[in-house]
Amino acid sequence: MFKINENYLKLQGSYLFSTIAKKVAAYSAANPDKGIIRLGIGDVTQPLAPAIIDALHGAVDEMGKAESFHGYAPDLGYEFLRNAIAKNDYQDRGADIQPDEIFVSDGAKSDSGNIQEIFSLDNKVAVCDPVYPVYLDANVMAGRTGDFNQATESFGNVIYMPCSEANGFVPELPKEKPDMIYLCFPNNPTGSAITKAQLKEWVDYANRIGAVIIYDAAYEAYISEEDVPHTIFECEGARTCAIELRSFSKNAGFTGTRLGYTVIPKDLKCGDVALHSLWARRHGTKYNGAPYIIQRAGEAVYSEAGKQQLKDQVGYYMNNARIIKEGLKAAGYTVYGGVNAPYIWLKTPDRMTSWEFFDYLLENANVVGTPGSGFGPSGEGYFRLTAFGSYENTIAAIERIKKL
Amino acid sequence: MFKINENYLKLQGSYLFSTIAKKVAAYSAANPDKGIIRLGIGDVTQPLAPAIIDALHGAVDEMGKAESFHGYAPDLGYEFLRNAIAKNDYQDRGADIQPDEIFVSDGAKSDSGNIQEIFSLDNKVAVCDPVYPVYLDANVMAGRTGDFNQATESFGNVIYMPCSEANGFVPELPKEKPDMIYLCFPNNPTGSAITKAQLKEWVDYANRIGAVIIYDAAYEAYISEEDVPHTIFECEGARTCAIELRSFSKNAGFTGTRLGYTVIPKDLKCGDVALHSLWARRHGTKYNGAPYIIQRAGEAVYSEAGKQQLKDQVGYYMNNARIIKEGLKAAGYTVYGGVNAPYIWLKTPDRMTSWEFFDYLLENANVVGTPGSGFGPSGEGYFRLTAFGSYENTIAAIERIKKL
Repeated sequence: MFKINENYLKLQGSYLFSTIAKKVAAYSAANPDKGIIRLGIGDVTQPLAPAIIDALHGAVDEMGKAESFHGYAPDLGYEFLRNAIAKNDYQDRGADIQPDEIFVSDGAKSDSGNIQEIFSLDNKVAVCDPVYPVYLDANVMAGRTGDFNQATESFGNVIYMPCSEANGFVPELPKEKPDMIYLCFPNNPTGSAITKAQLKEWVDYANRIGAVIIYDAAYEAYISEEDVPHTIFECEGARTCAIELRSFSKNAGFTGTRLGYTVIPKDLKCGDVALHSLWARRHGTKYNGAPYIIQRAGEAVYSEAGKQQLKDQVGYYMNNARIIKEGLKAAGYTVYGGVNAPYIWLKTPDRMTSWEFFDYLLENANVVGTPGSGFGPSGEGYFRLTAFGSYENTIAAIERIKKL
Repeated sequence: MFKINENYLKLQGSYLFSTIAKKVAAYSAANPDKGIIRLGIGDVTQPLAPAIIDALHGAVDEMGKAESFHGYAPDLGYEFLRNAIAKNDYQDRGADIQPDEIFVSDGAKSDSGNIQEIFSLDNKVAVCDPVYPVYLDANVMAGRTGDFNQATESFGNVIYMPCSEANGFVPELPKEKPDMIYLCFPNNPTGSAITKAQLKEWVDYANRIGAVIIYDAAYEAYISEEDVPHTIFECEGARTCAIELRSFSKNAGFTGTRLGYTVIPKDLKCGDVALHSLWARRHGTKYNGAPYIIQRAGEAVYSEAGKQQLKDQVGYYMNNARIIKEGLKAAGYTVYGGVNAPYIWLKTPDRMTSWEFFDYLLENANVVGTPGSGFGPSGEGYFRLTAFGSYENTIAAIERIKKL
């Protein structure tokens, strides 16, 4: 009789955002007259920029003619896209990354979940707490963790690195030695940023102890402050210890269009084995590339028109972030984030738990946010709001919260 | 110091089609004047059908307006697509599959590689020999196999089921008991089909011994004979033992557009645990859905116009298959396949090995095919040609081969 992967049974309930969707659907069904505003899941609301729409139409036309039709894509992604990424996201920032170190994918969620596969099951994982659930859940599913401890609300054999008001939501170097360190900055869910000097400490630490840093820079486009690095490869030494995950979801609104990439420098090795070659093997064996038309859309992100339009789009969301942050402050809330990231991280009032505040906000303001405890035990007592709504909805949501 | 997943090092060389691509590129660079015809990789050449192009343009326009923009897709795929699949590919064929048993993905290669994740590493895997490399390689990478034995050209702890002229390229039930059985019919690479009665034997066997069948029906659209099942769910009993993988690559030319789906009936269980819930969890955690515009393109495959246009497209490729098969027969080759599948499986002449014939054909006819031995030890002495070229190239390739 076949057996299942028992590690899946260690996971707690359903994926966080599925739970929220179910709760909202139930409330909505029971209260069809209430206009719910969703500032929960980090999903964008603005349409794709005109330069991207033009690129998509152009690529669709190509697919309709035999002479310009495209079948299977190259394993690592089309050169036109990898060249644009290498130049704009790395070389222009002084980071030495070559096009053939870039692996184009269908998004950072897939890469976040899959990257652990190329590592030994014996490796010890360190994650921030709170944290985007995918890093941890993927390691649970692979069997790299122990069971879930209900008392501590955490998995065994994992190094949780608390991110709190005390450390400005940037974790300290862990006491116990990890092999794989997941970092995400600008951070989801806390909206906090890391300075270049702070990140350099992590790079030096990883090189010193022989750990690999899996660096998620999905929110890079929202950085507004000077000393915040846009890529870990701005830090000297990162080529021998870091993998970077990037997404087109938040800088270009591709949540429903799907495009991302992973950077693995060829200098990153375990003994003689380059991680680059392992990931290339995984890509070649289990993946068949992002659609041609979507890769052309990705290329348009780096065109002059695309850059300007997306700068405006990011500005639109960051104006929402400002409205939320200032509105909540005026209403007496303690709030973080929203300066280099599209997330606002607030302390729940009156010692409510995160889920209590979720229900309170849903029922009394008809506003959906994300309970901080869903991101880990140190998220308890916090709550995440996103700036990805429309301007009108953002204004309305804050007015409703102010009236509570 | 972090460690890698050592199972990757068991893999032999690079992925088959990467090796072929490199060989062809090298020959091409050395002989720039030669016009190479590629009948190797199973990549389509005909443009997307007009109904699909129209649907893509329409969906792109939707993505450009705030009121019709689509962000994250539902976990399992959009209902409009799952409903169309359930009706057309299952219910209209008398197979009881519901829309919520369908998981939309970016293609059958991803699903073929990832599906093993929900199973225990202790399970014993059975594969056809020869076989599409992804099933086996994904299990090697996960650690479900032993080392590669150079003498037998096979991995330890795997049940290889020989498919030969003697058994009509349909394997016998294995003597040793497997837990996970991979079957692909119509078959890649041999182009052979299985009858409904034969497949029913496999379903009964799997239910009897408690095995799960992972059934790849990517080439279903090419079936021309009456007694060949279009889905394993035409067989009674399949709902408790089978998972089906499907692709839009070959029936609709989506190799560079990327869309597929996996069917897991809710009756398929290990004890109390439904495999459906495990795969739903994997989808929810490590995947963010196929692009909205691509799912709309998938929907158009099932429109009246789409169906007619794709019937013509499949007919075009099957005419190529006939040309290859009859041409090779006339030239004295022993050939199989090409009736219910777009692949021709030929015996190499003069006891050449598969790779010897590959080089011979590349150098003397400038035609690229796929060495049978790349699909497993029983593929040695065979060679695969695909019908996915253009009509003109197919005619030209056969003329060149005839002249050898």
